[in-house]
Amino acid sequence: MAETMKAIRKAAREPGLVVENVALPRVGPNDVLVRVAAASICGTDVHIWKWDEWSQQRIRPPIILGHEFAGTVVEIGGQVQHVRVGDYVSAESHITCGMCFQCRTGQAHMCPKTKVIGVDCDGVYAEYVALPENVIWHNDARKIPPEIATLQEPFGNAVYATLAHDLAGQTVGVIGCGPIGCFAVGIAKASGAASVFATDIVDFRLELAKTMGADAIYNPRNSDPSGGDGRNGTTNWLIEANEGYGVDVVLEMSGSAQGITSAFRAVRNGGRVTLFGIPSSPVEIDVAENMIFKNLTVLALNGRKIFESWFKTRWMLEGGVVDLRPLITRELQFDDIEKAMGLLAAGEACKIVLRPSEVAHDTSAAASHVSPEDANVTGIVRHP
Amino acid sequence: MAETMKAIRKAAREPGLVVENVALPRVGPNDVLVRVAAASICGTDVHIWKWDEWSQQRIRPPIILGHEFAGTVVEIGGQVQHVRVGDYVSAESHITCGMCFQCRTGQAHMCPKTKVIGVDCDGVYAEYVALPENVIWHNDARKIPPEIATLQEPFGNAVYATLAHDLAGQTVGVIGCGPIGCFAVGIAKASGAASVFATDIVDFRLELAKTMGADAIYNPRNSDPSGGDGRNGTTNWLIEANEGYGVDVVLEMSGSAQGITSAFRAVRNGGRVTLFGIPSSPVEIDVAENMIFKNLTVLALNGRKIFESWFKTRWMLEGGVVDLRPLITRELQFDDIEKAMGLLAAGEACKIVLRPSEVAHDTSAAASHVSPEDANVTGIVRHP
Amino acid sequence: MAETMKAIRKAAREPGLVVENVALPRVGPNDVLVRVAAASICGTDVHIWKWDEWSQQRIRPPIILGHEFAGTVVEIGGQVQHVRVGDYVSAESHITCGMCFQCRTGQAHMCPKTKVIGVDCDGVYAEYVALPENVIWHNDARKIPPEIATLQEPFGNAVYATLAHDLAGQTVGVIGCGPIGCFAVGIAKASGAASVFATDIVDFRLELAKTMGADAIYNPRNSDPSGGDGRNGTTNWLIEANEGYGVDVVLEMSGSAQGITSAFRAVRNGGRVTLFGIPSSPVEIDVAENMIFKNLTVLALNGRKIFESWFKTRWMLEGGVVDLRPLITRELQFDDIEKAMGLLAAGEACKIVLRPSEVAHDTSAAASHVSPEDANVTGIVRHP
Amino acid sequence: MAETMKAIRKAAREPGLVVENVALPRVGPNDVLVRVAAASICGTDVHIWKWDEWSQQRIRPPIILGHEFAGTVVEIGGQVQHVRVGDYVSAESHITCGMCFQCRTGQAHMCPKTKVIGVDCDGVYAEYVALPENVIWHNDARKIPPEIATLQEPFGNAVYATLAHDLAGQTVGVIGCGPIGCFAVGIAKASGAASVFATDIVDFRLELAKTMGADAIYNPRNSDPSGGDGRNGTTNWLIEANEGYGVDVVLEMSGSAQGITSAFRAVRNGGRVTLFGIPSSPVEIDVAENMIFKNLTVLALNGRKIFESWFKTRWMLEGGVVDLRPLITRELQFDDIEKAMGLLAAGEACKIVLRPSEVAHDTSAAASHVSPEDANVTGIVRHP
Repeated sequence: MAETMKAIRKAAREPGLVVENVALPRVGPNDVLVRVAAASICGTDVHIWKWDEWSQQRIRPPIILGHEFAGTVVEIGGQVQHVRVGDYVSAESHITCGMCFQCRTGQAHMCPKTKVIGVDCDGVYAEYVALPENVIWHNDARKIPPEIATLQEPFGNAVYATLAHDLAGQTVGVIGCGPIGCFAVGIAKASGAASVFATDIVDFRLELAKTMGADAIYNPRNSDPSGGDGRNGTTNWLIEANEGYGVDVVLEMSGSAQGITSAFRAVRNGGRVTLFGIPSSPVEIDVAENMIFKNLTVLALNGRKIFESWFKTRWMLEGGVVDLRPLITRELQFDDIEKAMGLLAAGEACKIVLRPSEVAHDTSAAASHVSPEDANVTGIVRHP
Repeated sequence: MAETMKAIRKAAREPGLVVENVALPRVGPNDVLVRVAAASICGTDVHIWKWDEWSQQRIRPPIILGHEFAGTVVEIGGQVQHVRVGDYVSAESHITCGMCFQCRTGQAHMCPKTKVIGVDCDGVYAEYVALPENVIWHNDARKIPPEIATLQEPFGNAVYATLAHDLAGQTVGVIGCGPIGCFAVGIAKASGAASVFATDIVDFRLELAKTMGADAIYNPRNSDPSGGDGRNGTTNWLIEANEGYGVDVVLEMSGSAQGITSAFRAVRNGGRVTLFGIPSSPVEIDVAENMIFKNLTVLALNGRKIFESWFKTRWMLEGGVVDLRPLITRELQFDDIEKAMGLLAAGEACKIVLRPSEVAHDTSAAASHVSPEDANVTGIVRHP
Repeated sequence: MAETMKAIRKAAREPGLVVENVALPRVGPNDVLVRVAAASICGTDVHIWKWDEWSQQRIRPPIILGHEFAGTVVEIGGQVQHVRVGDYVSAESHITCGMCFQCRTGQAHMCPKTKVIGVDCDGVYAEYVALPENVIWHNDARKIPPEIATLQEPFGNAVYATLAHDLAGQTVGVIGCGPIGCFAVGIAKASGAASVFATDIVDFRLELAKTMGADAIYNPRNSDPSGGDGRNGTTNWLIEANEGYGVDVVLEMSGSAQGITSAFRAVRNGGRVTLFGIPSSPVEIDVAENMIFKNLTVLALNGRKIFESWFKTRWMLEGGVVDLRPLITRELQFDDIEKAMGLLAAGEACKIVLRPSEVAHDTSAAASHVSPEDANVTGIVRHP
Repeated sequence: MAETMKAIRKAAREPGLVVENVALPRVGPNDVLVRVAAASICGTDVHIWKWDEWSQQRIRPPIILGHEFAGTVVEIGGQVQHVRVGDYVSAESHITCGMCFQCRTGQAHMCPKTKVIGVDCDGVYAEYVALPENVIWHNDARKIPPEIATLQEPFGNAVYATLAHDLAGQTVGVIGCGPIGCFAVGIAKASGAASVFATDIVDFRLELAKTMGADAIYNPRNSDPSGGDGRNGTTNWLIEANEGYGVDVVLEMSGSAQGITSAFRAVRNGGRVTLFGIPSSPVEIDVAENMIFKNLTVLALNGRKIFESWFKTRWMLEGGVVDLRPLITRELQFDDIEKAMGLLAAGEACKIVLRPSEVAHDTSAAASHVSPEDANVTGIVRHP
């Protein structure tokens, strides 16, 4: 192993990122060192690249970005018990305390002491990353290649948010077709939804939603946005797409005030709404007409269940229930980071997978010998 | 039986009510005629008495008011199958179609063809009322006297709204201590809640909440309402009452914008909110900070489950789980209707029970002979 | 309309059935008369044909058999409110009281006063059948032809039993691949199951299960049934098919003692079992090892939710979520009833659809004009 | 601190226990050393005392027994992060791996690598015990004294098993009134159950059940056990106690075949059964009549949720929802262990609390200064 490695860093308190050589990370007694095979870009990374207000408050340069990845373990600390050199892994991006009320009751995604990889400490846009053993997630090299394994982290959010309501036989509206919205369309269709209706203001995204199985798509920018009856265009379209009736379940993935309003208006009486997209300012809601008199169940969700969502995610991907390949609209190298960020900022890409270099290492051999007994040890445990 | 009866009617399109003699109701083939033993006053009746905007749009005088009651069946129509003369009964106040999606899936409280007794057709503030067999609810005279039986209708709303979330071992905030809020306090305490914190702007109501078991009470009008830190006083008090932490479950029963805001602010991360009080205008909600980042489950509820809530209601009352007697702050006669309305409008009463006359008839004999077999026939069926 | 009609009856207390001309049914004030377009045969009908012990105790000949069908309304009684002449309909086969605890709480499938069509009163193996309005189910002629509409009744059982557990991302074992088992395979695959493993002792059925999407199939009769390690062959195969681990969810549809034992043994710790197949005698269960130490959730289910399962059923069929066509292994006429029963008794058919005569009437025009408003009236209501 | 301590050990492979002086436990880097203030005796300890077949297979003497306790931390290992000297604590008795499917999805009570304190390694019947930090449970000295804190471990089982079904307004049968059954009676009554009916074959236990709130009690040994109608006496009594109807929820805590049979027979159609008592041999169950045709939901449960049940347990005890004091039928010293075991074996005690010596140390000062901020650190976190 060399003494330095290539990494993508926010080097200074200003827009942009730099690809540079940095020292290899130090491996603590409870850590494992992973050689990164593939990483993928999250919207959060775009915010940090832009150096927006949130980033300026949260990020302390210099820092290596990135929290979605897959790779192979090359070294383990002295106290590590469940991970071995050679294991093919990804990781939960939230390092949590493990002892608080939230961590101890399956709600670690709300741990008040959370540190996020690539945000609060060095991340995975590097040839190597050191991570605590307890966030490591074992992959099965026979079933999921690195470019899909890296997507488990964001796909897990969609699995959590989409399957929080039972969808079998239901009509489902998906408002907002960024990566999470497109994931949601695929999950809903594969989980027995009778019909999935998708809306967005970018046609490129709507085409992807269609590829993932949307039965009908709608762009309010291409239509009369007013709706003409006091409701907005999206509300009207959803109800029309559903033959004149309210939709059973609406997944709000846009984070726009208009999207949230449409969600509450287009859902049927007794229906269910998931709020997942994050609005940038307070929203005025007609609580009486659009919530209480409708007898709604509303889930406001953020993140994913650690590790419940991960298992469901793995099983859906390994079982071929949802195919994420169409959503990897580009595969690039670390050196192309500016190009990648430009495409994402322009709404011309869905998920972009990055490789450290042109000839990324092969993981096909990794853990490919796994017997059930080994699986138990290495954690590729389905369920004992 | 006389040819006429005493009834309380909205006689004309103007404020107030009149007590007058009217013809006995006609009994259709599917109807039963009930002699009213006791009735109770709902907030809706106060609205109609005041002749507010909503009433002016909905009510078509002359009409007999009232939808909460208990009495004895004195006549049945030719097609009636499950009700007998002598049965001691109350009734679901919503006459629903029975065939729509909502009615056929246990959500009849959302039937789009609903007619409300005492609002859309003649009600129970009369010596006799004719009702379709399928809204009739059998009471057990050995266990529930008329002044409690009449409270089943509104208490059922509280049972539905309060027990929609599991409360055992939880801390519960109740915002708004009108009758439903006071019912909720009693239900929560009797259902294993660790602590119940109650708030209202009327001290009289808070005293009743305390009687029903509230561990702590708060009136923002008697305290610094601002909270002094950007949150309102109610939010701060709830968190302090809970030793500095967010509350597990908040039941919003006030319908005020401030109450709704407090509910979302005072609930813990991962907590649950029930919205039951109906606000009169849209509410601005910080969806990101106070809903999504908190991972909330929100139920917006209206009415009660027909008849699921009724069974739970009966069993809690018959089993002595909650004692409603302290909430009957007055018992009056039909002739006292103006006095009753005045007390309610002034916030000086919780539930008022009305009797047709000073010597109301005795129901102690009614159905008191009920054997399990008879019970099956008459519908006092626990569960076959 | 003629004065008589062709019908399939159990004419006497002996094996077999007769096709004969009988008087048209009388239409009561709350009834509708339906001209049958298609009917399908249930296992119960085979029992009655055989005149087994259960039939001898329950059936009172002469009686017209059959309870699965679709057809067009040709006459309505005077009190009928929600059904019109020309409506294209099927029906819930259980006529329930509507007033008991079970009926009033969404559990009408447990009503103690239930009368079953074609078992306790004349059924649908006839040119015409008279049924009470409140069991009528409206179909949409644009979306579901009669040969599929008739399958809604039994398919609804599978929808209820299969979707009672969340299946997204789970591994599912289906033991017993009669019609309900084959339906279950299709529903599970379409509802996000990661893998579905199906077992039966008849190869013909296993082939159908494969057509419906089973990932792997197993016939213990073709293999070593002992399992060789104290477990039976089915248990071993299920665990091997699942890579050495217990299965997340097992649906027991065989009703055999061995199937039930396999279900409890093959499910993982913390897993879920649905018991739907009805065993003919008590079963010895290792409650400690195979239930309690495994922390199981067990649903013992019978029938379907009235009408909750019907709506889910409709939506899954209309949405094309599951295609039932491969399971209609024969379409025959009433006159072929002996042949049909022979095929079923021999395990050489899955579902058989019967038509009154070669040229069955056309339903394509029926209700094809339905506007949302009409739909509301006629009950093809998705959800208001 | 002395170099040796008093402890109760299984010293040799034979019946009985010895109180002897042993070396203080070694404190590893992730361990904390606790001075025991109070411990309580579990049925498992009685089995080990008797040296029954299960004990002979599982226990490797010499070993210190005991897994229910409360005490004060006196020393911490170098890697310990969340526990401080002076903390007043108890512990989860199952040391689990933290990385397997079960541990990572809130089902650690099914971790296949579990080690039980006092069974697989030295336990708490000693003046001091060393335990890994991650099983430590912080108590609040202001609210729960040691003799109650030690009961949290077994009470948590009852909390889990009893509240797994919603009990508000329901009728509940508890079969078997050992400690867990008596806990269950108290929890059910405090959680809104309409009526609780308790049965056991020991009158002493039934009296305790009554003290905990049972509405009616029954001992089949004092009555006609046959029931006289093909059902057993317990089944008949439960149905009669419930006015002739099946019971909504039955909690089987006896582990006897007769108890399990009664549970399935006495529960109503559509009712719920929890199997918690562990039978010593397989049980014959009429799956068709008593499970499937009844449409039952059955939970077979073992242990408790780590740490979900602990939080609920704490909150119910701190909130005064259930008072466990009546169930501590004796308080003794370590030296009295033979007497204690004798009382338990004879069915003459419910819970027995042991103290290391007559003048057990005072925990009143421990952690009594806890501010919300400290609480966060030390883990007495309600919920952040």
